[in-house]
Parts: sequence; structure tokens; C-alpha cells
Amino acid sequence: MSHNTFGHIFRVTTWGESHGPAIGCVVDGTPPGIALSEADIQPFLDKRRPGQSKFTTQRQEPDQVKILSGVYEGKTTGTPIALTIENVDQRPKDYANIAAQFRPGHADIAYELKYGHRDPRGGGRSSARETAMRVAAGAIARKILGENVSIRGAMVALGSHWISRPRWDWDEVPKNPFFCPDPVAADAWESILESIRKQGSSLGAVIEITAEGVKPGLGAPIYSKLDADIAAALMSINAVKGVEIGDGFAAAASQGPDNADEMRMEDGRVVFLANHAGGILGGISTSQPIVVRFAVKPTSSILTPVRAVDKMGQEVDLTTKGRHDPCVGIRAVPVGEAMLACVLADHLLRHRAQNGDTPDEARLPNTRFL
Amino acid sequence: MSHNTFGHIFRVTTWGESHGPAIGCVVDGTPPGIALSEADIQPFLDKRRPGQSKFTTQRQEPDQVKILSGVYEGKTTGTPIALTIENVDQRPKDYANIAAQFRPGHADIAYELKYGHRDPRGGGRSSARETAMRVAAGAIARKILGENVSIRGAMVALGSHWISRPRWDWDEVPKNPFFCPDPVAADAWESILESIRKQGSSLGAVIEITAEGVKPGLGAPIYSKLDADIAAALMSINAVKGVEIGDGFAAAASQGPDNADEMRMEDGRVVFLANHAGGILGGISTSQPIVVRFAVKPTSSILTPVRAVDKMGQEVDLTTKGRHDPCVGIRAVPVGEAMLACVLADHLLRHRAQNGDTPDEARLPNTRFL
Amino acid sequence: MSHNTFGHIFRVTTWGESHGPAIGCVVDGTPPGIALSEADIQPFLDKRRPGQSKFTTQRQEPDQVKILSGVYEGKTTGTPIALTIENVDQRPKDYANIAAQFRPGHADIAYELKYGHRDPRGGGRSSARETAMRVAAGAIARKILGENVSIRGAMVALGSHWISRPRWDWDEVPKNPFFCPDPVAADAWESILESIRKQGSSLGAVIEITAEGVKPGLGAPIYSKLDADIAAALMSINAVKGVEIGDGFAAAASQGPDNADEMRMEDGRVVFLANHAGGILGGISTSQPIVVRFAVKPTSSILTPVRAVDKMGQEVDLTTKGRHDPCVGIRAVPVGEAMLACVLADHLLRHRAQNGDTPDEARLPNTRFL
Amino acid sequence: MSHNTFGHIFRVTTWGESHGPAIGCVVDGTPPGIALSEADIQPFLDKRRPGQSKFTTQRQEPDQVKILSGVYEGKTTGTPIALTIENVDQRPKDYANIAAQFRPGHADIAYELKYGHRDPRGGGRSSARETAMRVAAGAIARKILGENVSIRGAMVALGSHWISRPRWDWDEVPKNPFFCPDPVAADAWESILESIRKQGSSLGAVIEITAEGVKPGLGAPIYSKLDADIAAALMSINAVKGVEIGDGFAAAASQGPDNADEMRMEDGRVVFLANHAGGILGGISTSQPIVVRFAVKPTSSILTPVRAVDKMGQEVDLTTKGRHDPCVGIRAVPVGEAMLACVLADHLLRHRAQNGDTPDEARLPNTRFL
Repeated sequence: MSHNTFGHIFRVTTWGESHGPAIGCVVDGTPPGIALSEADIQPFLDKRRPGQSKFTTQRQEPDQVKILSGVYEGKTTGTPIALTIENVDQRPKDYANIAAQFRPGHADIAYELKYGHRDPRGGGRSSARETAMRVAAGAIARKILGENVSIRGAMVALGSHWISRPRWDWDEVPKNPFFCPDPVAADAWESILESIRKQGSSLGAVIEITAEGVKPGLGAPIYSKLDADIAAALMSINAVKGVEIGDGFAAAASQGPDNADEMRMEDGRVVFLANHAGGILGGISTSQPIVVRFAVKPTSSILTPVRAVDKMGQEVDLTTKGRHDPCVGIRAVPVGEAMLACVLADHLLRHRAQNGDTPDEARLPNTRFL
Repeated sequence: MSHNTFGHIFRVTTWGESHGPAIGCVVDGTPPGIALSEADIQPFLDKRRPGQSKFTTQRQEPDQVKILSGVYEGKTTGTPIALTIENVDQRPKDYANIAAQFRPGHADIAYELKYGHRDPRGGGRSSARETAMRVAAGAIARKILGENVSIRGAMVALGSHWISRPRWDWDEVPKNPFFCPDPVAADAWESILESIRKQGSSLGAVIEITAEGVKPGLGAPIYSKLDADIAAALMSINAVKGVEIGDGFAAAASQGPDNADEMRMEDGRVVFLANHAGGILGGISTSQPIVVRFAVKPTSSILTPVRAVDKMGQEVDLTTKGRHDPCVGIRAVPVGEAMLACVLADHLLRHRAQNGDTPDEARLPNTRFL
Repeated sequence: MSHNTFGHIFRVTTWGESHGPAIGCVVDGTPPGIALSEADIQPFLDKRRPGQSKFTTQRQEPDQVKILSGVYEGKTTGTPIALTIENVDQRPKDYANIAAQFRPGHADIAYELKYGHRDPRGGGRSSARETAMRVAAGAIARKILGENVSIRGAMVALGSHWISRPRWDWDEVPKNPFFCPDPVAADAWESILESIRKQGSSLGAVIEITAEGVKPGLGAPIYSKLDADIAAALMSINAVKGVEIGDGFAAAASQGPDNADEMRMEDGRVVFLANHAGGILGGISTSQPIVVRFAVKPTSSILTPVRAVDKMGQEVDLTTKGRHDPCVGIRAVPVGEAMLACVLADHLLRHRAQNGDTPDEARLPNTRFL
Repeated sequence: MSHNTFGHIFRVTTWGESHGPAIGCVVDGTPPGIALSEADIQPFLDKRRPGQSKFTTQRQEPDQVKILSGVYEGKTTGTPIALTIENVDQRPKDYANIAAQFRPGHADIAYELKYGHRDPRGGGRSSARETAMRVAAGAIARKILGENVSIRGAMVALGSHWISRPRWDWDEVPKNPFFCPDPVAADAWESILESIRKQGSSLGAVIEITAEGVKPGLGAPIYSKLDADIAAALMSINAVKGVEIGDGFAAAASQGPDNADEMRMEDGRVVFLANHAGGILGGISTSQPIVVRFAVKPTSSILTPVRAVDKMGQEVDLTTKGRHDPCVGIRAVPVGEAMLACVLADHLLRHRAQNGDTPDEARLPNTRFL
């Protein structure tokens, strides 16, 4: 069962509400002897932290993470690592008016129908604030994967405005408020989103995450396929409505010969001539880069009134107040990276469980992969 | 852990290879007292069965299911239901040449890298034949969901050729070899796919599955969101490369106000004015129809030679023989229905575990939902 | 997987070390709408708290629990309940000398062999301090079970000194420092244990826990039998070396007719004429009181020197310092109660998942059970 | 969840009823490349097979196991291994009279209360026949553990008649119908049990299982302790009412100094001077032999009439017919061995997941353990 837990060997359990005293997580299954301190985690939280540009919520949260267990003398002990972040900038009054009203596109009505009792302040448990703990866990997952694995994300579409792939430059990603790899698109997005923000509207986004250096053999048929676990992990991020691997939906529009990732040998190494599959075949990694994309819907909290109902079954016209992101997709980039890191770390350990520590390349003796 | 198992309360474990003596599954967690016989399962298997048109593999498999346990005097006992189907039309010789060669787009190389030893006959464990057991399990899941829940699927795109939504007619679905709800599109597809088939090529497809009558409250934050579990279930189907819920990737291109599913009251019932969310908010069902789509890549087995490598690290040019579907997407329709049914049945039982049997509508006393 | 988590629907994850800043747990799966505050939990922690008599460790820990999430306006919301207790009275210096030495009977050498790196202060993760969180979780489990279920524990043997069952009086349990239901035995134990304490030695104990008012039908064949889950839960308590249900090992010495729990009807109610089975048949509760016992070994930390080895492979003679319980079994009583409560709460929810909310008595229409 | 499944990486799911067409199991998570055929499994089934002496049920079942998947060219592929055994000697008529009556000590009433519908023939799912699949799975577990691990069981008490430990001789175990290691006791038991059998009565038993050669480090705090998982596995065997590790309940009666397993060095190897702990400290194996015992109650099916009730709430006097074992403990010996093997195999793989394949001995560089 996994209401608030994910992973099998590397397991993450999160807790906390948007306006409670704190949020936190327990990371279980980390191998022992890994150097770890708050300084390994904080930079990733800083990437996700709100209030860094006018395009993310103005809530001011330092998001300082504390390690409460599982690390001794600077190294993991293999026991559970508890992490917490205090909630600092709570303004529950902002939410007083929505306690009994159901905002369209929000989890309000769904939680009410499921539980009959909920914390409405800032979305309570369904707040995107919970994703801070995913980012924290992801930082630990990266340590397990090691330095040869590189997991990077970028926003590739703001609303219907896509980047130009030939202009893709990873170095551009940290230079603009969108994690955008295309400097020309980033410039254009600035004015587009500013206009949307002033209208009190919002935009969706598409995020792409790439993992390079992943060893072959991770994943497991039939119901723990690597792509299936990635799909669940990404779809569990707030506001995500679609996930695709490799060519994704475009693959559906292609013909067999065009979709083949043909192979040649080069210096004793298998070289794939394309990566339509996004690094995964039959649910198992092949050593090619893992490429995934996910679609984030526009922020449901908008400043224009929407027709809604309340807890008493009355019709209401509802205008959301509070502090919101005009494009929640932006801050989803570090979250997506973290979720992919967690899934890969879990599968690395799972693979080792069943298949041991023998170098996977050894299974094809004449062939190298990474 | 769930290598070959999925679900938490309603759990399905499958086993078997394409050319072994049989395939089977164990369905655990079914409530007791449900009327069940092979006749409840067989019709769904017949929909998925190969060899029914020239557009699916010509392998002739009667796919007769047998119930070996868990049913007594025509009703489930709550103990594990074992199902098996014999493999009848095995032709392992068709695959002799590929035992040591890695077909592009197939799981061959991935299994070899993971396990170092595999059954290459017909893809072994990675064969789409395994999906027969998903369909069988899905038939039991439907019995748990009850007659008020209707789960139906259709193919909405063959390659880049989409149906026209205004022509959608569920009655058309069983009348053509594509599960296509648009008779005009179905006609066009016939000639398109026939041409592709004669070329020895293949096409991708997009499938849409709808579940109506699902009670509100199913799903669970944060890591068992209903949409996350659906995404994993569909992504685990062979050849699937993308999954979306509701508007999916189109939501990413929209603005906030256009994506809002506004609400009004009508005769004491909450009426949603749109269903961009696809029936799920915050990972929890809302009573609106659940709408999901998944992208199936074109069959990787094609008759034109592709560049590949073999187990010895030698380059080979490989032409796939054997019997294949020019569009594996077609038979994915009943499989997608079954997977959605299984996820919903599991979440129905999970919801009851935590939240009891009180009518969910009772949680909002002035309001009806279904 | 469950390294530091137990339960399936009602799930408890604990974290923390004896001498870290705090210990804590996350309790997931609690039904919504249950009144809950720290005041519901604290009394059980107070029962387990050290330093209350000379027979438990003199470490002074107020063990004040804090609820950090999952409760809103005094009622559970169905989301994860995070609990923490600060560690106040840490004296890591007491343990400096044992950081590199392996105390016989302790987890030191086992942790070192498993992880290669561990927190040695006070036993780190393997400290009995962790059981405080079990007790806290157990208090929540009791709220789920409801007031009709009564779970009570008692110490029935101190070393080889057993109570007299005819003198069993539950009212005596809180009146002595042993949770002993027999006042005569309690008196005797006082001088026995005082003598053991002065010798720097320690004694084992047997604890018996009874759950009354448990509805029939809880448990699940074959590998989630109620007794199997109870056995695991109790065996996971520090220093426990044996578990038995009902007559337990004595049943092995009996003949079939003497072990039969015969049944008669009385006022439309099934009456069992004995309870050799301890309330569980075929892994499923029958409505009879559930009776379990577990054996606790004598505290391994003793003041007499023992022969041991250190991390460098050198022989050492080791005398444990620090603050210890001369009989760890005493404080195991509230822990055992808590573990039984947690298992029963989980199975109550699991049973409801598969078998619904229909009164179990209804299954035998002419018969009442509770 | 694990109604009918146990294990985490090495996972066993069983299905089938006593008088259905067959019983079976699915063994998932087995590492690839292990030589495996029916001949590796059959000898263990033959040890458990009924009808081999007058002291076990006279049901004649050849118990021929078939492997249906997961093995290719004589080696495991890492995919699920499906095993089945046909039920041959069904005599459902023997059970016609008990379909509506609840036999004391049997699962009849518990199943009825839980499910409201059950297969009464031979106990249905609760029949000890299910344990054949545990034995089959255990044979695979032994292959994973390797030849250096030796798991052996013996009956150490028949009713109240214990063996003499100084006479323990493993070579005697296969020479008598009791798996008794003491030839003198075996002789005495023969006449004792013959007398019991003729009276239509039955006797309990205590079984001891030892695992030698188990590497240190297996097990995991806090809720997957090796001893906790073993306790659950053994308690899940039919008719088991108690489990103990090492000194078990006797430890409770001892003093700290007497219970210490002191350590010395001998030729660079840690030598434990005793094994009161039964090979497990803090839930983790230490390299000492793992020693566990479990108590089996006397067979509940006896030929003397017992007072019972039926489904209509009527009192009945019930005499069991059918074919039964006068001491079910006898056939529990190979079952207990198998369960211990399965738990150890699972923990071996789990340990490798988190802690890798480095020799555990390497963690204490100056010290050898096995």
C-alpha cells in the first residue's frame, strides 16, 4: 500500500499540510556509508523554492531542510532518514472564504467527497507545498545513483509556445525564470507570462526530464516496468495530466520503420542510431538516455470569477485569492527531476536485489554499453 | 514489490511465456459471494483474441480460460482465483533465428542485459500474449465494480489518422476490426492499414478508455493517486509510450479559465459544465466520467530489414519473421479497458478500507453526484 | 517492503535514534473524522516512560508527543499523522567506550556486519527508545478499533517466577511497578528484582496481552493470518524471543479432545466452552478474546564484565555502563498492547476492504457473536 | 498486501483448495541463471507427501509438481515460475456432512464469519494441502541460498514427550516416520502415537529448524527483523500456535549473565561461546546457526464426538470422518524447513538490494565469520 509512500527498496513517505507547523518525509532504504548533509539537499530545494521571480507564488518560505535521523558522523547509516522543513509564511486567513467552497480544478471537492473532513488552508495536504519533500528525497536519490548519472529537466513549452530544439542549450536553463533551454523562447515567454499574470489568468506547460548515464537492466517486467513506475511518479505531481516516454504520443503517429532504434557497433560499443524509445525497452533501461515529458495544466487558481458550488449545495461565484503561480509548471521542473531520480534509485537497488552486483555489461561479453 | 503483480487489495499476479505450455494469473482479494464462471470472462478474451481479422496476428489461439480455484458453487469465496489458458499454436521455429539477435524496438536486448538468460521464443515473457491474463482479470474487476460502472474503449487514431469526435458512436465499435467509434474513419483505416500491412510496415495508434458511473472518492493522495495508478497500469501495456487523463497534453496548451470545470446545481445534483480534468481531481474521482488515452507505438516487428547487433557483438541485418499485428494498438483496446477496470476495482476496495461503506454522497448532505 | 514500516492499510513508519535530536513516526491510513489530540496519546506514553521506578532505566525523558499533521480542528483528516518526541536526556558520553566494541546480546555486531557504519550512542536505531513511537501509534489504533475493543497487557512471569492465575485482577496492574495482575506475585517480584538490580544482573519476563471485543472475521489466509501478523509484530519488539497464541507451546503437549474449543448456543449466541485457540482459527478472529504471550530475554546490558570482541578483531572484557532496565520486559507491556492494537486496526480496515461493512454477525443469520 | 503472497523480493503466491482440480503457486523474483527442474523440487515434496506411514493421512496424492514458466533450457530466467500439482485423490463426499457444521478447532466457522461463503470440502483453502506449495517454493529458495546453507528440521517433542538432546543425530531423522533425531525417542513415539491413533485422538508436537551457513547481515530493522519475518512465516503454517528463536521462552526465565553469547577470537574468526540468541541479534543474522522452534497443536479432527453448532445456529454433536493425521506436526517438518528457506532467500536478496554484494566479512576487516 502506498497512500503517502512510494518506492520499494528506496522508499519515501511524506507528511504535512500547506499551513501546518511543518512538512516532512522519511526516506528509507538508503544504502549505508553515503556522505550526506543538509548541504547536499538544500540546493535542490532552493531551485524549487517559491518567491524567486514574479512568475511563482510570492509566499516567502526559506525551505531550510533539517536531517533528524539516519546520518551519523556525516554518513548514512542505512536507517530511516527523517527530513523536515518548517512552514514559515502561513497566511491561513487568505483561505477562510474557501473553506466551504469548492474551487473548480482543485482537489477541494474530491477530498470532501472522499474524507468528509479536510484542512482547507492552502489546499491542505493537496498543496504543491508537499513537493518540497519530493525534491529533498530526490537529492538523496541522486547520491545513490552516483555522479555518473545526470538528471536534468527543462520546460519545453509554455502554454502552446514550444522551444526550438536546435537551440537547446543546458547552460541556459539556470539563466531564466523558466528553466528554459532556449534563450529565444525564454525571452518570448517572459512577456507572454507577464501578460497572463496581469490578466489574473494562468498557463500550462510541458516539462522534459532526461537521465543520462543510467546503467542498462533497470526495471522489471511486467508490472514494475521502469516506464510504468516513472509514469506513476510523474503523474502523481500536482496538476500533471499527461506523461510520455521517448517519442510518446508522436510514436503513435509514426510507422514501424521510422520508429526503429537501429543498432551498430562502434569500438566494441553498441550504438543506437536513434532514441525513439526514450531509453527503455520492454520496461527495462537500455543505457540510452531516458527521456520523459509531462504536461502540467494551467494553475486552477485564477483571479477571474468561476461558477462553483459550496458545501451546502449552493451555487457560488468564486474568485481565488491567496498567492499563486501563474504557471505551476515552472516549479514542476525540479520536482520532475526528483521523482525520476527516486524511481531510478529504487530500481537500481531492486535490480541489485534480484540480479546482483555483476556489471551488466558483463552479460554481453563482447559489448560495452556506457 | 510488484515485478509481476499489481494492485493492493485486488491483486493480480501473472505468469507465463508466449511459447510455454500455458499462461495464467492469480487474482487475489476478490470479495466473496460474487457470481463468477468462465462465461463471465471468455467474451472479453474473445475480443482480444488474435486471428480475428487480417489486421491482427494470424496465430490461432482459442484462448479458452479455465478457473482452477477460488470459486465454489458458482460464487467467489474470497480466496485466490487461479486462471489459466493453454498455449496451443506455438511455432517456436519461427523464432530460432532471433534467439541470439536483438530486434530493434523489442525487449530482447533489455532482457539480455538485465537477466543474461531469456526465453526468446515469441518474445518469451515480454510477449503481448501476457495481456490475455490482464483481460481475464479485468473481467473479474468488472464484476466487483458492478453493473452501474461502464468501462468502454475505442481506438481514436490509427497512425496520424484521427476519428471525428462528432461522429462518435459506441455502437460502431464492435462493427469494425479496429474498435473504431467513427464509421467513416473505420472505412478509411481499412485501406490505410491494408496498404501498410502489404508493405510489411506497421502503424501506431491512440486508444481512449472511458469509465462511467464511478463513485466519487476513489484514489488516494499522494502516491496512490487514481490517475497515477492508471498511468502506471496503462504504461505497463506492451508498446505504450504515453498516457494522458482528461485533456492531457492539450491542457498544457490551455489557459486557466478555459481549463476550469465549473459547477452548477441541477435538481440537487452537482453538474460539472466540462470535464477537462477527465474525472479526477487531486488524484481522487469526482463522479464525472474518467477519460484516459494512451499512445501505442507501431509494431516493432516489420518485414523490412533493420540494422541490429547480436549476442556476440556482431552487426546483423535483421528481418523479422513470425506472425505479427500490423497495428498492435487494435488489440490494446480490450487490454486498456481491463487495466482501467482493475485499477478502479482495487481503489474501490481500498477506499472502503479507509473510509467505510457510507455512501459518499452522504458526505455532502445536500448534494447528489451519481 | 517494510524495513521501518508495518501495516498495510493502517501503516506506521518510525524513524530516529536513541541519542539523535528526536524520534518520530508517520501513521498513514487512519480513517477520517476521528477525534484525536495529543491527550489521546500521552497517557499511553506515560505508561511506557522510563524513570518511573527503580526498575526501569533512570534516563529522564518527558516523552511529550506532538502531532504535526493529519489532524484539523480536532479530527483526523485521513492524511498522514506525523508524531514526534524530542530526545531530552541524551548522554552520549556514556557510550563512548562501546562505539568500537560489540556488546554480547546487543545489536552492535549485527548492525556493523550489515551496514559497516552505525550510530553507537545508546544503541542508535536498535534502542528500545524506538518503541515509544509504537506506543504512540497504538493509541491511534485504539481510536480506530473503538471503545468496544479492550486491549490490556500484564506481566505474567518475572524470570522463572509466574503469577497465580486464580489471583488475576486487572485492577492490580497499575498499582505495582511491574504491570502485574497478581498482588502477591508483585510483592515477591519487588524483592527479587531489587536483588537482581543490586547484583548488576537482569531478568527476563513473559508478557500476556488480551484483546476483548474484537469482531469476528479479522485476518486473512494464508499469509496475512491474524496470528502470523501478531507474531511478527510482537517478535519485532526489542529483546523478544518467543510468541504464542492461546495455549501456545502448551497446546503441543496436549491431546486433540483436550484442545477442542467446543461450542454451544446460549440465547442465540455461540458460546465457546474454552479458548485454547486464543481467539483465532485458521488465521481469522472468532470473536473470542485474543490471547497472546511473548517472552522477553533478560536485559543484555549487565554490570558484570563479559567477554567480547571489538571492531579491530581484538578480544575485550566489557562492562556496560549507562542507564539500563534490570528487566526490559516491564516496559514491554504497553509496547505489546500497542503492537496488538496496530495489527487489529490494520486488519479491521483490511477486512472492510474485501468484505465490506456488513455486520459480520449477519453472515450467520441465526447467530450472534459479540 | 499479502493475503496469499509472502516475501518481498523473493515472493511466493499460492492458490488452490483441497478438493479443487489442482493447487499451485507463482514464485517471483528468483535470480536468473539458476539451474532448476522438477527434480530439484520433487524430493522435498516427497518428504511431505501424505500416506507414507500410518501416522499421516491415508489420502494418496502423488504430488507430482510441474513447472509451467520461468525456466528455459534448464535455467531460471528471472521471470515468474509457475508450479502446479494436480489433486488426484479427492473424496468430497467425506465432507458432505460438515458443509454446514462448524468443527471445533477448524477454520470452518472463522471462514464462514469472514466470507459468508466457503468451499467446505476438506477444509477448502484452509487445508494443510496448501503447504505442498510452500515446500515447492522452499526448494527454489534453497537453490538461491546455495549449497553452503544447510536447512534441516526435526521433531523434538511428540505431545509432552521430548527427545534427549545429547542423543541428537541428524542421520536418524530420515530413518523414522517422525523426522526424529533421537532413535530412542522415535521408538517410544511409535507406540505412543499408535495408541493415540487407535483411540481416534491426536497429539501436538514441537518442531525445531536449524539453518547453518547463513551469512551475517540478513534482516532489517525495525519491522522486517529476520526473527519477526520468521515468526510470521512459521505461525502461518496450519495448526501452529507458538514460535521461538534461540532459547525462546526459556530465555525469559534466565538471568542476564547466563543469557550472554560471549565472544572470543580464534584464528581471526569471531567465535561465539554460546547461541542463546539463535543466530539473530537486533533482527539481523550474526553467522551463528539460526535456531527456531514452533509448536503444533494436536490435529483438530478427532474421532470422538465434540459439541459444535451449525450454520443455522443449531447445536450438533460432531464426529469428524475423512482421512486425517493423528499428529499434523510430523508433516510440518518439511513445511517449516521450506518457510525458513523462503524467508532467508528473500532477506538475502533484500540485503543485497540495500547493502550490495560486498562480502559482509569485509565490513570487519580483521575478522572472519563463516
